[in-house]
Amino acid sequence: MTRLVMKFGGTSMGDLERIRRAARIVAAEVKAGRKVAVVVSAMAGKTNELVAWTDGAGKPGAGVALSDDEYDVVVASGEQVTAGLLALTLRNLGLDARSWMGWQIPILTDDAHGRARIEDIPGAVLGAAVDSGQVAVVPGFQGVTRDGRITTLGRGGSDTSAVAVAAALECPCDIYTDVDGVYTTDPRIEQKARRLERVSYEEMLEMASLGAKVLQTRSVELAMAKQVPVRVLSSFIEPDENGNLPEKSGTLICEEDEIVEKRIVSGVTMSRDEARITLLGLPDRIETTARLFTLLAEANVNVDMIVQSRARTPETVNLTFTTGRRDASRAADLTRAAQGELGFEEVAVDEDVAKVSVIGVGMRSHAGVAQTMFQALADKGVKIQAISTSEIKISVLIDAAYAELAVRALHGAYGLEAA
Amino acid sequence: MTRLVMKFGGTSMGDLERIRRAARIVAAEVKAGRKVAVVVSAMAGKTNELVAWTDGAGKPGAGVALSDDEYDVVVASGEQVTAGLLALTLRNLGLDARSWMGWQIPILTDDAHGRARIEDIPGAVLGAAVDSGQVAVVPGFQGVTRDGRITTLGRGGSDTSAVAVAAALECPCDIYTDVDGVYTTDPRIEQKARRLERVSYEEMLEMASLGAKVLQTRSVELAMAKQVPVRVLSSFIEPDENGNLPEKSGTLICEEDEIVEKRIVSGVTMSRDEARITLLGLPDRIETTARLFTLLAEANVNVDMIVQSRARTPETVNLTFTTGRRDASRAADLTRAAQGELGFEEVAVDEDVAKVSVIGVGMRSHAGVAQTMFQALADKGVKIQAISTSEIKISVLIDAAYAELAVRALHGAYGLEAA
Repeated sequence: MTRLVMKFGGTSMGDLERIRRAARIVAAEVKAGRKVAVVVSAMAGKTNELVAWTDGAGKPGAGVALSDDEYDVVVASGEQVTAGLLALTLRNLGLDARSWMGWQIPILTDDAHGRARIEDIPGAVLGAAVDSGQVAVVPGFQGVTRDGRITTLGRGGSDTSAVAVAAALECPCDIYTDVDGVYTTDPRIEQKARRLERVSYEEMLEMASLGAKVLQTRSVELAMAKQVPVRVLSSFIEPDENGNLPEKSGTLICEEDEIVEKRIVSGVTMSRDEARITLLGLPDRIETTARLFTLLAEANVNVDMIVQSRARTPETVNLTFTTGRRDASRAADLTRAAQGELGFEEVAVDEDVAKVSVIGVGMRSHAGVAQTMFQALADKGVKIQAISTSEIKISVLIDAAYAELAVRALHGAYGLEAA
Repeated sequence: MTRLVMKFGGTSMGDLERIRRAARIVAAEVKAGRKVAVVVSAMAGKTNELVAWTDGAGKPGAGVALSDDEYDVVVASGEQVTAGLLALTLRNLGLDARSWMGWQIPILTDDAHGRARIEDIPGAVLGAAVDSGQVAVVPGFQGVTRDGRITTLGRGGSDTSAVAVAAALECPCDIYTDVDGVYTTDPRIEQKARRLERVSYEEMLEMASLGAKVLQTRSVELAMAKQVPVRVLSSFIEPDENGNLPEKSGTLICEEDEIVEKRIVSGVTMSRDEARITLLGLPDRIETTARLFTLLAEANVNVDMIVQSRARTPETVNLTFTTGRRDASRAADLTRAAQGELGFEEVAVDEDVAKVSVIGVGMRSHAGVAQTMFQALADKGVKIQAISTSEIKISVLIDAAYAELAVRALHGAYGLEAA
């Protein structure tokens, strides 16, 4: 069995010339003997255009009806176009190819329109098609409910589609993108950032949720759950004159025990997608704090970090928590609406914050990782506003102005630039 | 039963404001108690863009792979978008609405991709949906084969979709378009052209095939076969402040015996889509002529008019025939390739011709229609190059420069401007 799923994103499908380049890469894999399914995104910018139309068709001022089944009908069309165009292009390179819509395979999802989750992909028919030598071109992002309505998986869902198809076909997944792999940190911030040969599912999952843009978080969760080896590769390659690809580099996302090179810290990430909300003069009673976080949870506001500090009077505290920036004003409104009940004096929202994180499975067995982090930040005069940790990461909230400085300091402190 | 199919073309779906206008017209029909299915075209210009992409994805210089199943996958997406957008817009007017893709209904077609013919539309599910008060929005132009591949019906196929859905739902079909009905002739050529209140299926069929652009020929054939009353209406109307539509005008296409006002001639059409091919000095033997037209038929070249005239020598003739302009150079090439076999001296192609036709079911019972036509053309000095007739039409081929003049002369000669 030499099946392979290849995924090309919106930039790689951006115009006919790029689609031809992707087709040449696919042809090289077929020439090398692989049985290939290709998962494609819509042309870059297309999904935004379609979303804007659904927005305009909605009630004035009501915004996009993301949960609407008809939103999905409109937005899923972008991937249908690129799937057909790639299949045509592959045929014109002499390959056997056809498109397989989400409803044809089918890619069965729940009915949470606009953010559906894949429930099942029967692999037998698609598997037989690729094993027969046909390149199966699958539109990413889209699925179908059990009663036959079109769904979409939410933005960036094509990565998840690709991993799910690979799981159904029981094969690895190569994700072609406009970067050539997963880096120790964002190379636009730290020129010394180094591409990782391999990274574990767990580390990649933390990196994706903490700001690394290279893969969608849900696709990594799925790859981890289904044990799908995922390789992130640059789509800016060309087969040679004999139609052979250069040896694959990029980054392989795999099990921890498949990684020979042991590191304590694998990467440093930065996210500006945070907001800090502070309640001044909150009564120092456990019931009050519990009530506040119940309110937020009921409104689906995810709270990340929480810090409590002394206030002006001994009976009150100042309470700081962070949420996604998108939820910040809603969280503040909810809190204000409950001011009588909670009894605080004032609420303040600060969006001028950044979350900087260090991630590595080696933290499990190595002490001193936090110490190195705090020392490196202190040396640069960066004040830590809040902290959160997991078994394999430490995140700190800092003033946004220091974010890049902090990333570079931590990248150096853990020696990530070394080969 | 007060079911109704309404069809909106690409101009009526051209942008969100036009989609909202169409939605208001639909809402008025629902308010009037009708159970409505709406068939929509893609946004004006969209299908051309999609076709151009499939063209670019094809082999260089090979042109559009019209018969390719993947062409259909790409091109069918345009109607999916407008169906979803109209459903969203209708919901936001407070109506129950949903889109029904070709594969969901299903609109079953044969597998002649790019020009598929509808074979069956099971009406029960769709009928139950509209009877329950749901507005069913159906993308025109698209269907699905029995083994689940997407098909398209060929350019202008949305009219055919609308009539087919009306046949399945056993109800009339209102076609909203950018003209307000069927005219005695093109009002851009003859200002005195008059809108017909009613026109018979047979007349409309001749008009559509002979140059009237208002409806696609196949849709009229289907309406005639299935006895679907079709009304052509302007989409540039607005419900009043109470949400009621003005009384319907437009043109009703119906059975001949439902037309009270008896006319001999109902319309004059003009088509520039013709070419004349002349073979000079062809041996005057029936075998040669038969061989020529066999050659053309085998290459799927449709021949319309044929005229034979004396040549320079008594043993030869000059033979003139007409084809669609699209087929002309192919027909000439075929003929030239067989010059040795056929033994003619020279072949000439003339695209500077027009076909002008008068159409009317009254011709069946009235003599003198042809006489009036020839006299009117002679009075203006228009020379007739060839003639073809059917029971209800007479067509003449003339120099293209005289086409508009001929149309106006005939419109006057048959008194079509009179109320």
